[in-house]
Amino acid sequence: MPTTEFDLIERFFAGHDRHRDVLLGVGDDAALLAPPPPGEALAVTIDTLVAGVHFRADGDPQALGHKLLAVSLSDLAAMGASPAWATLALTLPEPDEAWLESFCRGLFELASEYEVALVGGDTTRGPLTLTLQAAGHVPPELALRRAGARPGDAAPPDDLQAGEADFLQQRLDRPTPRVATGLALRGLATAAIDLSDGLAADLGHVLEASGVGASLELARLPLSPPLRRLADVGDWTHPLAGGDDYELCFTLPAARLAELETLDCGVDVTRIGTVEAEPGLRLVAPDGSPYTLTRAGYDHFGGSA
Amino acid sequence: MPTTEFDLIERFFAGHDRHRDVLLGVGDDAALLAPPPPGEALAVTIDTLVAGVHFRADGDPQALGHKLLAVSLSDLAAMGASPAWATLALTLPEPDEAWLESFCRGLFELASEYEVALVGGDTTRGPLTLTLQAAGHVPPELALRRAGARPGDAAPPDDLQAGEADFLQQRLDRPTPRVATGLALRGLATAAIDLSDGLAADLGHVLEASGVGASLELARLPLSPPLRRLADVGDWTHPLAGGDDYELCFTLPAARLAELETLDCGVDVTRIGTVEAEPGLRLVAPDGSPYTLTRAGYDHFGGSA
Repeated sequence: MPTTEFDLIERFFAGHDRHRDVLLGVGDDAALLAPPPPGEALAVTIDTLVAGVHFRADGDPQALGHKLLAVSLSDLAAMGASPAWATLALTLPEPDEAWLESFCRGLFELASEYEVALVGGDTTRGPLTLTLQAAGHVPPELALRRAGARPGDAAPPDDLQAGEADFLQQRLDRPTPRVATGLALRGLATAAIDLSDGLAADLGHVLEASGVGASLELARLPLSPPLRRLADVGDWTHPLAGGDDYELCFTLPAARLAELETLDCGVDVTRIGTVEAEPGLRLVAPDGSPYTLTRAGYDHFGGSA
Repeated sequence: MPTTEFDLIERFFAGHDRHRDVLLGVGDDAALLAPPPPGEALAVTIDTLVAGVHFRADGDPQALGHKLLAVSLSDLAAMGASPAWATLALTLPEPDEAWLESFCRGLFELASEYEVALVGGDTTRGPLTLTLQAAGHVPPELALRRAGARPGDAAPPDDLQAGEADFLQQRLDRPTPRVATGLALRGLATAAIDLSDGLAADLGHVLEASGVGASLELARLPLSPPLRRLADVGDWTHPLAGGDDYELCFTLPAARLAELETLDCGVDVTRIGTVEAEPGLRLVAPDGSPYTLTRAGYDHFGGSA
């Protein structure tokens, strides 16, 4: 049973810092990283998951390790960045060996899939709270920002389609960051965001940042069978306001829509609407009438946004 | 009263991301940072402070904002890195406007003193927990690692001297990261660490990483009057095992000790011992006899390290 912080770090977190960028990994006052390749910038994001808020404290630690990293890789994907390294801050009620082993399995499986090095961290005692900061590389002129949407752009999120209950749980617990999609969209998408707070809220962020509006055609939304059944009775709340999806929503000039056919990123892409000059998000029901959404998306402090 | 996460970010944390390195700051999926200057690497560290563990939940939020950043800047200082930017993960029981205003005052005062940009963050609801990740620049061959101590090196930490009670509290609440000292030590120190867990434990990390040992002469330790009074009755526990000091402890070749006289870093430096080939830390009491320490330093999981 490891009893000290240093034992813990040594035992569970060291040795995952081998990577072309890592000059000095875990174990010093700070890690040393080589700069991004010439002409590229560093894309940086940080995300926290809190027990009892974002996950159940008694949930599967392996899924949690996966999700913690996936959430940050999804942000990098939405910038069109190639993942490189991460730092981890782990606050634990106690050093539970079995829990840590399982958590690390989930974290490092995904890290090794995307060649992400864990270069540093901090372990502290306290209420179970996990923060991961991830960095990637992207040529700044090709980065997929939120503020690039232009009137006439089309708005296709990549495929949201799903199976049934177990699959939905799996999607919630083990989201796939769309890293390859983000890379494929460099130079093609005019704006992009990952869907963490819900399609309506996240697309809203893109429109606001870009100073434009959009019409979203509900009939075009790719839906899993359970959501399709709700939509069939007129309830579009889940596809519009459900968070934790981690698909990418992006815009591109309508004239370049055909290029999506040959996009090599392993996922289907669906056009769901059109960017317009008039600010605001207009939802168009399948019968052509306006649709009003009452709950827009997840807000961390429970506001009525 | 801000009710949504986005209001909070906009109101308290945006606008502190202007910096030569920042290509895209707060408000997108990820921030975009220019690479370090040619020939330099990125030094990266992450630290967490937990309410009830590292600070009192009802303590001064301004001091807390200062300390959160100071702790990370101290790590960068101990690498000889020049601070550049930071990301912040803030978990709060509720969005308390007065608390946030005061916290931000402490954080951003120190950030602007060291020209550190806050480029991204995440705010979540939960038990009060603060994580800050900071990055700086350093030519990798000049970085002050822990593993560079060589037998014959001298071990001077810079000045630990202090005043009395209020001053000690001030030192605990508002530590000064020794950034200028770290920069001045590039190319001179053979190893360095910042004293967060206590002199004996932190110097122990340097010795272990370097594969050497040291003799520490207690009579040489610069002590504040209250610690001096304890030392006079033979109690060296506090100067050796007290954490949260954030001074730098470093080693350098004995032949270069004279260069410390002209070191331009605004703090006094004291030689406290000698690096030796034989592993282990030997404490030498003022009368020349060996001194044994029973409690070596702060450990986050309460082990008996």
